[in-house]
Amino acid sequence: MSLPRVRVFAPATVSNVGPGFDILGFALHRPGDTVEAEASDAPGVVLVEISGDDGRLPREAARNSAGVAAAGVLARSGTRAAFPGVRLWLRKGLPLASGLGSSGASAAAAAVAANLVLGRSLDPVDLVACAMEGEHAASGSSHADNVAPAILGGFVLIRSYHPLDLVRLPVPDGLFVAVVHPHCAVSTKSARALLRDRTFPLPDIVANTGNLGALVAALHQQDLALLGRSVADALVEPIRAALIPGFDRVRRAALDAGALGCSISGSGPTMFAFAGSDDAAARVAVAMRTAFRESAGLNSDAWTGPISPDGAREVR
Amino acid sequence: MSLPRVRVFAPATVSNVGPGFDILGFALHRPGDTVEAEASDAPGVVLVEISGDDGRLPREAARNSAGVAAAGVLARSGTRAAFPGVRLWLRKGLPLASGLGSSGASAAAAAVAANLVLGRSLDPVDLVACAMEGEHAASGSSHADNVAPAILGGFVLIRSYHPLDLVRLPVPDGLFVAVVHPHCAVSTKSARALLRDRTFPLPDIVANTGNLGALVAALHQQDLALLGRSVADALVEPIRAALIPGFDRVRRAALDAGALGCSISGSGPTMFAFAGSDDAAARVAVAMRTAFRESAGLNSDAWTGPISPDGAREVR
Repeated sequence: MSLPRVRVFAPATVSNVGPGFDILGFALHRPGDTVEAEASDAPGVVLVEISGDDGRLPREAARNSAGVAAAGVLARSGTRAAFPGVRLWLRKGLPLASGLGSSGASAAAAAVAANLVLGRSLDPVDLVACAMEGEHAASGSSHADNVAPAILGGFVLIRSYHPLDLVRLPVPDGLFVAVVHPHCAVSTKSARALLRDRTFPLPDIVANTGNLGALVAALHQQDLALLGRSVADALVEPIRAALIPGFDRVRRAALDAGALGCSISGSGPTMFAFAGSDDAAARVAVAMRTAFRESAGLNSDAWTGPISPDGAREVR
Repeated sequence: MSLPRVRVFAPATVSNVGPGFDILGFALHRPGDTVEAEASDAPGVVLVEISGDDGRLPREAARNSAGVAAAGVLARSGTRAAFPGVRLWLRKGLPLASGLGSSGASAAAAAVAANLVLGRSLDPVDLVACAMEGEHAASGSSHADNVAPAILGGFVLIRSYHPLDLVRLPVPDGLFVAVVHPHCAVSTKSARALLRDRTFPLPDIVANTGNLGALVAALHQQDLALLGRSVADALVEPIRAALIPGFDRVRRAALDAGALGCSISGSGPTMFAFAGSDDAAARVAVAMRTAFRESAGLNSDAWTGPISPDGAREVR
């Protein structure tokens, strides 16, 4: 008798989105990671194989974001799990340490895949909580702004972490995004260490909450100009921009090429920009790639398109 | 020939609304302040009379929020002003230093009234900017979270102060508010001084931006339960609550009586609570008044009703 087996794709995600540090993210159509999961009669999680990472990720399931997320699904499913264990094959489609939610996509795909083969006893919010455990293993921090959109799709706001309270936000018609990943790495752990123990003055906090509120209003009101004006971060971006070679020039190039707004994706070095059409997003991406090359000598990859309404899902 | 003369009412406002320090406020139907304005051939602003303040407000126009706001309208109207001056009569309906936007209501009513008699050359955002100058004269700070809803009505978000960028937010059907003003005073200047030079850690900022974003989403999605959960402030409320006798007991009483959420109105001591019906708001107000009396020996006034879609407006 063959054991249940599925293949799940989870998309790259842009988190923070300017003023939404640790609370806001959205899903892209591509790139993404793929996890195959097979139910097992042997207890626990076995990470059979990882491909596409040049051997850089931990192979031990208990130290890998996909393995930890699947273990979380096993634990939370408890006696509802149809099998005591799960075996995983992880195929990385996302560059590591890119700011595109790489560890989050692996965790999201593994959580969804494990749940499918173990009997589907967890709901999406449970799965986000499991994927957060995977994120913690990879980055040292239990943030959900990548794994929540990687699982739910679209734009997701995290109202609260204790308890976990997720709010889906609408995606306006006509909104496109350009995402440009320069060929250098920023580790999430290092980027977060820069922020540890920092405190921030009230005027900068007021500026950020104003922009965050306006960004949420713009998504509901389909006001792309307001959305663009709201992509501004007085707290974290100035600190993290220093880790991204050419940041100011790339941002300027994006805006000059017609971007509605531009900021860092996650902890960088990937940068994203919003645009009002697919063509505009493509022009913006070209301008950003040129600016990375000319100002910092960096080659880059780019993806453009609409925001994906879909999160992690079974694929054939 | 008689000179143009109008009477304008501007409503009380609840600002901050939990997580929205300095960027969020909404208008009540009542109470409010009334300003009569008359165009004048004598240059400048004359504050002819103030009533209802027990003689506590500055009579000099240049030091009074209504006088300064009207002077701002004169200055911004420039050569478009049909007259070189304006005379004002201010009737206070709002208690001073209550957290109900008292100085803001006077400034809003004066700005709108002055614009009407001087030829209506300013738009609502200009009028908010003028009223902010009045607010600055009264409180030492140019915040807009009272004067913006006092002029525009409804729920208003301030995305940015430089430049001033206001976002109107929808008011859900079935949302009611209870506002309870205990008979003690908190000066806005003193309340703001407590915050000066403070800095705040990132986890508390993350909690606040999550709640602020969720509050804005809840208004658009008509999700009253989410709205209630979002009325939480980890930054300013804990500091200001210490100035309000009985704060914890009053908040607890509001929630026990069915409030969706409860926090400080502006810099206090007034507290507000959201409720899902007019009856529920009335029960909540009774519970809050009882708690102020029993826990702090304070009498109080209460107002209940829906949020007002209207801001400052001409009345007969």
